[in-house]
Order: sequence, then C-alpha cells, then structure tokens
Amino acid sequence: MAADLLILGARIPDGRLVDVRVGAGRITAVGPDLAAEPATEVLDAGGKALLPGLIDSHLHLDKTLMGERWVPLPEAPDLAGRMAASDRVLTAQDRRPTEERATALVRSALAFGTTALRSHVDVKPSIGLSALEAVLAVRERCAGLVDIQIVAFPQDGVLRAPGTDELLDEALALGADVLGGIDPGGFDGDVEGHLRVLFRLAASHDVGLDIHLHDIGHLGGFELERIAAWTVAEGFQGRVAVSHAFAIGELPPTDAARLIERLAQAGVTIVTNGPGHRATPPVTQLWEAGVRVAVGSDNVHDAWWPWGRADMLERTFLVSYRGALRTDRELLRALDSATLAGAGLLGLGPYGIVPGARADLVLVDAECAPEAVAAHPPRLAMIKAGRIVAREGVLVDAAGV
Amino acid sequence: MAADLLILGARIPDGRLVDVRVGAGRITAVGPDLAAEPATEVLDAGGKALLPGLIDSHLHLDKTLMGERWVPLPEAPDLAGRMAASDRVLTAQDRRPTEERATALVRSALAFGTTALRSHVDVKPSIGLSALEAVLAVRERCAGLVDIQIVAFPQDGVLRAPGTDELLDEALALGADVLGGIDPGGFDGDVEGHLRVLFRLAASHDVGLDIHLHDIGHLGGFELERIAAWTVAEGFQGRVAVSHAFAIGELPPTDAARLIERLAQAGVTIVTNGPGHRATPPVTQLWEAGVRVAVGSDNVHDAWWPWGRADMLERTFLVSYRGALRTDRELLRALDSATLAGAGLLGLGPYGIVPGARADLVLVDAECAPEAVAAHPPRLAMIKAGRIVAREGVLVDAAGV
Repeated sequence: MAADLLILGARIPDGRLVDVRVGAGRITAVGPDLAAEPATEVLDAGGKALLPGLIDSHLHLDKTLMGERWVPLPEAPDLAGRMAASDRVLTAQDRRPTEERATALVRSALAFGTTALRSHVDVKPSIGLSALEAVLAVRERCAGLVDIQIVAFPQDGVLRAPGTDELLDEALALGADVLGGIDPGGFDGDVEGHLRVLFRLAASHDVGLDIHLHDIGHLGGFELERIAAWTVAEGFQGRVAVSHAFAIGELPPTDAARLIERLAQAGVTIVTNGPGHRATPPVTQLWEAGVRVAVGSDNVHDAWWPWGRADMLERTFLVSYRGALRTDRELLRALDSATLAGAGLLGLGPYGIVPGARADLVLVDAECAPEAVAAHPPRLAMIKAGRIVAREGVLVDAAGV
Repeated sequence: MAADLLILGARIPDGRLVDVRVGAGRITAVGPDLAAEPATEVLDAGGKALLPGLIDSHLHLDKTLMGERWVPLPEAPDLAGRMAASDRVLTAQDRRPTEERATALVRSALAFGTTALRSHVDVKPSIGLSALEAVLAVRERCAGLVDIQIVAFPQDGVLRAPGTDELLDEALALGADVLGGIDPGGFDGDVEGHLRVLFRLAASHDVGLDIHLHDIGHLGGFELERIAAWTVAEGFQGRVAVSHAFAIGELPPTDAARLIERLAQAGVTIVTNGPGHRATPPVTQLWEAGVRVAVGSDNVHDAWWPWGRADMLERTFLVSYRGALRTDRELLRALDSATLAGAGLLGLGPYGIVPGARADLVLVDAECAPEAVAAHPPRLAMIKAGRIVAREGVLVDAAGV
C-alpha cells in the first residue's frame, strides 16, 4: 500500500540511519531501504536527526502575551504583587482576547516541534471559567494539529479563594481533563485541607491531578510526602503529577533519597522546566528510582516571565544544562523526558519512532539526537499525525491555525 | 558625505526608532530621518531591534569540537578524569587541526552576532604553545571580522605543572594579550604562590589578568578577597578579571556584600556564563556595587561540555534566566553586560549605538532589545565595522572565513 508519507535517511535517537513510512497518521515501518514502495509524499531527511514530536507537559496558554506587541514585565515586589500584576495585564483594555493569545503561543510551540501539550488554565472566582472556555475553543480549533490537555488550575488557591472548589467542579464538567492544585501549605495554608478537596474532586470526575509545588526545602519535601501518601491511600497511583517540586533538589541527600523512593512507589510524575533561579529536581536520581520525569515550558512571555517562545528542544537543553546532563546517554534521557515521558503523562498511547506509534515527528538540523538537545538548532520539518505542518520553523498554510 | 552604510528604522536599546549612518567603520550619526543623505548600502531594519555587537568575554577556541562530526562527551568520574579525557579527545588521530576547529567556532559565534571575543587558550607542558600558535593564526585570519583577544591559560595549573611559568612567559611574548590563572587554592594548592607568579608575570609583560575560579563557598570567597588584595597592592585596579566566581553566589549575604565591596574597590571584573549546575554570581548586587560584569559562553561543544554554538544572545538569556532578571530594565542590563561591559573588559574603546563608536551591530528578529534577550530569536543581520558579514544567521561569502 502506498504510504502517505515516506521519510528518507533520518538519524533516529537510537543512532540508526533509517527510512520511516507513515500511513493513516501512524508509523507503519522503520528501517533501512524502505524506499522501494510508493508514497504520496516524500521527505528527504538528508541524514538529519529525526525525533519523536516534543511534548510540552506544562504551559499556561491563557496567561501568555504572545501575539501582542511586546509587553514589559510589570515590576512586582512579591507573589501577591505578581498575581495582581498578572491580572491587571491580562484585563488591560487593549489586551487581545485569550483565544488569540493562546493560539499565538500554540503556533509558536508547534513551529518548534511540539505535537502535544498540557496547559494549566486559571480557574478562580475573579474570572470564573472564562479562561477555560477560551482555551477549550483553542483546543477545538487546533484539533489534529496539536493535542491539548487542559488542567483546571486554582491560581488563587482553593481554600483561600472561597468558591473555587465549585468552579473547579464546573471546569471538570465543562471539559478540563485534569485537576490542578497549588502549594497546599505555603500558599493555601492547609496541606490536608487542600489535598482533601483535590482528591475528592478528582475522584468524583475520574481525572488525574497535577499540582504546582513551589514550596521550598523541608516544607516542600513534607508536602511531597503527603501527596505521595494521599495518592496511595486514594488509589491514584500513576495519575498524579507534581509540577516544579524544587524542594527535592534542596533536601539533604538521605531525605531526598527517601522521598524519591516514596514518589516512585506512589507513581507520582515530576514535571520540570529546568528552573532558572530555583533548585532543580535531581532528574538523574528520579530516573534511576523509576520516577517519571516530564518536561514543560511553564510561563512563556507573560506577566510572570518574559522568556522564551515555547521551544521545547531549548527547554530540554535547559533541563540538561541545569542538571549537568552532558553525555550522549544523559542527553537522550532528557529527550525521553520531553517526548516519551510526556506522552505517558498525557496518555497518548504508543509513542516514539516505532511502528504503530502516532506519526508525530520533528526533523532537526543536527547530526544526531544528542546534538539536537545540546545545540537545539532550527527545526527543518514538523510532522503531526503523518502530515508536514511546519517547514524551517514556519507553519505551512495548510496547518490552518 | 555618502555613508558606507545606512540602517533605516531600527529600534535601539533605549527604545528609540532611529536611522543609523556608518562611515569608515564607525557610527557617524544616530537619529530620526537620516535617510536624505546618500549611502553606498542601505539596510532596512523594518523596525526590528538593533543591538551593539555581542561580546563573548570567555571562550575556549582551542578546545572546541565544532566543525567535526558530533563527538559524544567522554564519561569522566572527576576533574582529573575530565582533563585527561579532553586531552585524549583533542589528540585523537583523526582530530581536525585546532585552527580548523577554532575557526568553525568563530564562524558560528559570528553568525549569531558576536563581534569581539576573549578566548582562553591552553598553555601547559604537555602541549607547550601549540594551541596558542593555532589560535594566533585564527586571530590573524579573522582580523577585520571579529576581534580576538587571547588569554594564556594554565589549564593544568601553574605550581603543580612545573615549567608552566616559563611557558606563560613565552606565550605573552608570542602575542597572548592577557594572563590566565586557575583556582589558586582548590586546584593549584597555594593561593599566595599562584597569585605571586601571576602578578609578577603580568607586571613584567604589562598585561591584565583573567583567572578561572571554580572553587566554591568560603574557599572561593577567600580567594576572591586575596585576588582583590593583590590587585590593589600591585596597582592592577581595572586590569583583573575573575571568570565564573560561583562562590559569590554561595556566601551568606553579609559576607557576599563585603566581598562585592572589595571587588568594586579593586576594579575586578566578574565574567559569568550563567552557569547551569553551579551557583550564579549575584549580578544585580554586583552591578549595584559598581562591579563590571561581563558575559561569555565558556566551553562550546567540547570534551568538557556538549552544549551550545556560541550564541551570545542565548547566553545573555541564560544569565537573565539564572539571575531572575525579568523586567525590561533588568534584561537591558544583562544586555549591557554582554556588550558594553565586554567592550570595556576587552579595551575596545567607544562602544554602543552612538556616534563615534565602532559600527559593530546586530539586527535581531525582535521588536525591542528586551525581547531580543528574552526570546533570543534569529539574527537578521550582523555588521562588523560597518560591513554586513552575516544575513539570516548565515555568513556572507565576502566574510572570507
């Protein structure tokens, strides 16, 4: 049968130079000399590195200022000031609609090779479900181009912002896929109370959890222990993620090792962005203990951070740079976190450059996958479900967003 | 008089939208409406961000593996192992000559907008002056395209590698511009002994110093105090740089503040690369105390690190990312470190986008300088001494290297 797409001469992460055949949106064959059979479209990879599509496991689509003229980051003295500043910036009179800004960010992510993403979306009394509704519309608009998973995120807290639990309930009924949380102790003031609400809601909607945890040191370590304990007690193994988890990188080695063991037992995923000015979770130790580590951009040019354009290969470099991951083996492991582990977290099914996996792929101007991570050079082509949707970092017209 | 180059409609770091006229390699005018007078060449900036040429204040041209097929980073258990591995990789039978590899790195740096650089070059008994001779040849070959300043760098130590002091002496006689040093305590084992040799040699050749300091915590802090004291005692104010200086970021706040005061008094420059897995020097505090902070790439794809391609705008982003420099004002300060401060360190004379300064400029696909740092997007044009030497990240043929 004629393939929909035939990729010739690509260097895949295991080091082999192969051809890849794609049919009906999935990879049908990977190996040498697959060119004899016909194909509707042929992409000559020229020996360059072909990677599984990148998965951004932590974005904030609703907060971004992409697609606007440059907006300087507002000065803010502390967290409360930053939250107020973000609200102020996002409700400014001339601000473009959430849907437009979020779409601009998706377009950027896509052009850099992201094929699936998990976005936290603010759900809080001051705005209700308006951000969620906008991102749900973006998800629909981008269907087929990028898989978007939505986390209902209580940015203003759960207990300290009365009415948030009902809103989260509505958000999950409306189409959010995952329930979010935020610093049960340091921000919301009641670790057990916060987790009680989250696990009750998650169970009632049969959804997973993804909790922002910025709390540092032993406080953060304690909260991670409690999250692991709740996960086991509620039978949520494999369905809970903690984003950031800086604290693991700050604990004394024996405490960290014990905590990591508990996270592994509870099947808790850690999502990191290779933080700039916070401790970075020790990814090598996490990997070795069997903890799934996924990678995400976090804020992209918004009122929280000015940086980036949702380039997940650069983000993978940042994780390697912050974690001193230097050998080919380590760089490839970081790449696995930004691809296979993300696919596991998002529940995307078979993933990678193997027959049967969805044909989500990115061709990079590098000799091999380790170089692709270390140098994160331009993307030559981005393929979603077997369709070329970007070339040379630019979306093709047919992409349609 | 007809300008050699007229740049139309560029957004410069102070926020103004201006035209820039260039003659005889220097900026002759900056302001609105300079288009009336004729010009040999016109570059329409289209409102994009025009920055002073980037200055890479810390590279290792001799160690790079750029221009080779990808070389995986060798595994190494410790510093001694890493040093041995680097020697082994660089003397491998099929290794390309230093001059060729160094030129490949210069080309990459240039395409990303670097117009001047300071390279440390290994000077040590096992290789003598061979690496230096190669980099001297590269400097000659690249004259007019990029200014290269050379530091004679005792990678294997001064006291622990007998004969190094004579080699450093010869290196300075041969054309090295600056004398290097390395961890007087933690690596060379004798802080006073190491500094005695360095300051004696520097004085006898009338050159500045640039000392690698990786030693952490209070040891590093002590060495910085000693370097400041030697600098003042020997009358070397303004002529000494310390590269890395992770320790400043690890000291208790009061100790750090006292040390920074001494560094300021001694006119010691700190050169940082926004380190990945080490503490980062507190650049805001350094700036505020009047300490010059310059920025450099450090190792680029070599046997020490696999990362990067000498993109100094990305490096500036890394400094901002590691230092939590988020507002426009902070991003611009980081950019100043990577441009004006570097020019001061390298002694390049008037620098910046002002009349009289050398016309070393880079046009970035960003709306403004803060966005250029935060997103470090592609370079549209790179101008050296008034000549366009790269467009869209690719060297023009006329560049001639």
